[in-house]
Amino acid sequence: MAEISYDVLGIGNAIVDVLAPAEDAFLEEHDMAKGAMTLIDAVRAEELYAAMGAGTERSGGSAANTVAGVAALGGRSCFVGKVRDDQLGRIFAHDIRAVGVDFHSAPATGGAPTARCLISVTPDAKRTMNTFLGACVELGPEDVDEDLVASSAVTYLEGYLWDPEGAKEAFLKAMGAARAAGRKVALSLSDGFCVDRHRDEFLDLVEHHVDILFANEDEITSLYQVDNFDAAMQSVRGHCEIAALTRSEKGAVIVAGEEVHIIDAEPVDRIIDTTGAGDLYASGFLTGMTAGRELPECGRMAGIAAAEVISHMGARPEADLMALMKEKLG
Amino acid sequence: MAEISYDVLGIGNAIVDVLAPAEDAFLEEHDMAKGAMTLIDAVRAEELYAAMGAGTERSGGSAANTVAGVAALGGRSCFVGKVRDDQLGRIFAHDIRAVGVDFHSAPATGGAPTARCLISVTPDAKRTMNTFLGACVELGPEDVDEDLVASSAVTYLEGYLWDPEGAKEAFLKAMGAARAAGRKVALSLSDGFCVDRHRDEFLDLVEHHVDILFANEDEITSLYQVDNFDAAMQSVRGHCEIAALTRSEKGAVIVAGEEVHIIDAEPVDRIIDTTGAGDLYASGFLTGMTAGRELPECGRMAGIAAAEVISHMGARPEADLMALMKEKLG
Repeated sequence: MAEISYDVLGIGNAIVDVLAPAEDAFLEEHDMAKGAMTLIDAVRAEELYAAMGAGTERSGGSAANTVAGVAALGGRSCFVGKVRDDQLGRIFAHDIRAVGVDFHSAPATGGAPTARCLISVTPDAKRTMNTFLGACVELGPEDVDEDLVASSAVTYLEGYLWDPEGAKEAFLKAMGAARAAGRKVALSLSDGFCVDRHRDEFLDLVEHHVDILFANEDEITSLYQVDNFDAAMQSVRGHCEIAALTRSEKGAVIVAGEEVHIIDAEPVDRIIDTTGAGDLYASGFLTGMTAGRELPECGRMAGIAAAEVISHMGARPEADLMALMKEKLG
Repeated sequence: MAEISYDVLGIGNAIVDVLAPAEDAFLEEHDMAKGAMTLIDAVRAEELYAAMGAGTERSGGSAANTVAGVAALGGRSCFVGKVRDDQLGRIFAHDIRAVGVDFHSAPATGGAPTARCLISVTPDAKRTMNTFLGACVELGPEDVDEDLVASSAVTYLEGYLWDPEGAKEAFLKAMGAARAAGRKVALSLSDGFCVDRHRDEFLDLVEHHVDILFANEDEITSLYQVDNFDAAMQSVRGHCEIAALTRSEKGAVIVAGEEVHIIDAEPVDRIIDTTGAGDLYASGFLTGMTAGRELPECGRMAGIAAAEVISHMGARPEADLMALMKEKLG
């Protein structure tokens, strides 16, 4: 068996976020589904960007945020994703490496530019995302190195990867390699609408291929097409080794066979922007897990990391997460 | 005489800021002059960027920040500056237009990429800037429309324009056009090192061509090569119609012929990042002046706008400046 080089290998869409404050009326005017991630084409991206206020650009991407959080927590992490060889691509690569994540995916030398996600943050701190996938559609199985997967304790995949066709193949190859090597496969369901688009495939994945599932209330109820959280929780029990189900201010529920843990949300002084909450939840959880911590403690770490990221704009941690964990967990 | 279309026309380097927190040791290690703006070439820019932590990209540029602030305060403003036709150039153009500034300068279609300023923000909230001028060197007199200048009440020029050769010519053309049309010329000295590079020319400008001068203590003492503020203030009196001299937490002094006003600094809860303090000071001052306010009130508006911008990361206002003025000035 290969030696473990990474605690978490993340595979996902490599995206630069463009964050701008917006009023609810702006969402209505532009027919946006509040709180959701909607895929848009280049034309719509131009239109929306033109209508948005002045923005802040920050590296993002769901799985990328998660592995950035793992690195910030002292874990060893690596990212696989596709940018183009353009300015935003270089910014993405710089930022993820600067926080200590290994990133070696070759940038695309042609085709669409680096992906961007136009994020409107409303006064209630909720984020509504419109993603132009750009160069992400160039990610394919050839970008997945099976030895890399085999040397990673957990391979973490975002559900969003099922949107671009080649990325789905990369996802399947990575999942197969992880399982063949006896490693763990973690999946985030990403978004309720994403679950809608790929429900049957996600159901199959959860039942047969995923060890650790991350989902929020909206996603897990969408997956099982039920109208309440408890029903969804009953459905997921036994389908995967561990399911971490997040419920915003109601905290989270961790289901692992017979075990069920109900973890209260961490207090937050002021919620500024919920972008990245789920991503950082996964960072805390997986860092705890790969360090051999018990499930309730993994849940606490997850909640603390998520609370940090929603207390400021942007989806990457700003505070010293290791110091924060020490302070909160002792 | 042409009709007034703009309160303030800003001409400056069009720059995207890359902000990242840094420790003082980082500045020492990389031989940076703390608090200063240093010009760097492409190679050094690559080196420093590689060494910096993960960043946030925001549109910047000194005069551009100032006109963005004027627009935020309800003034009519326009910007002239040179980006390239690349991703960062489009971000710059989007952001300045999104806040209501007119911007029509044609982007360069070849040559260096859009300028960027690598800003290290130390824990004391001071910013140290390393600027790669990139496409800014393409700005030339052909980019200055004399009718535009003649229709602007104030043409605001940043001292930094004396760094790229063509921009200096653009500066001189704009200044000549403003004076020929009977409009006001405002100048910011920009930076102590910038004053060092161009002292003789700046002395000539201040004495013979500038109506409104903005300078901080460091810049004005450097200009006159004196070792204390009072000596510098005595020197500048009578050299230009109005000089607004800023002194950080000591407030500002406005000198206008016989008039001298000493305006205390606005209180700030927590200073996060001083990037843009001088730029927004000029926004408040010029907006007040072009609205016909008295000098002490212009000084208050200047201080309020500066206090807002240092209370968060980045050099563009985030709060509703018009509401803030109403609240503070009644």
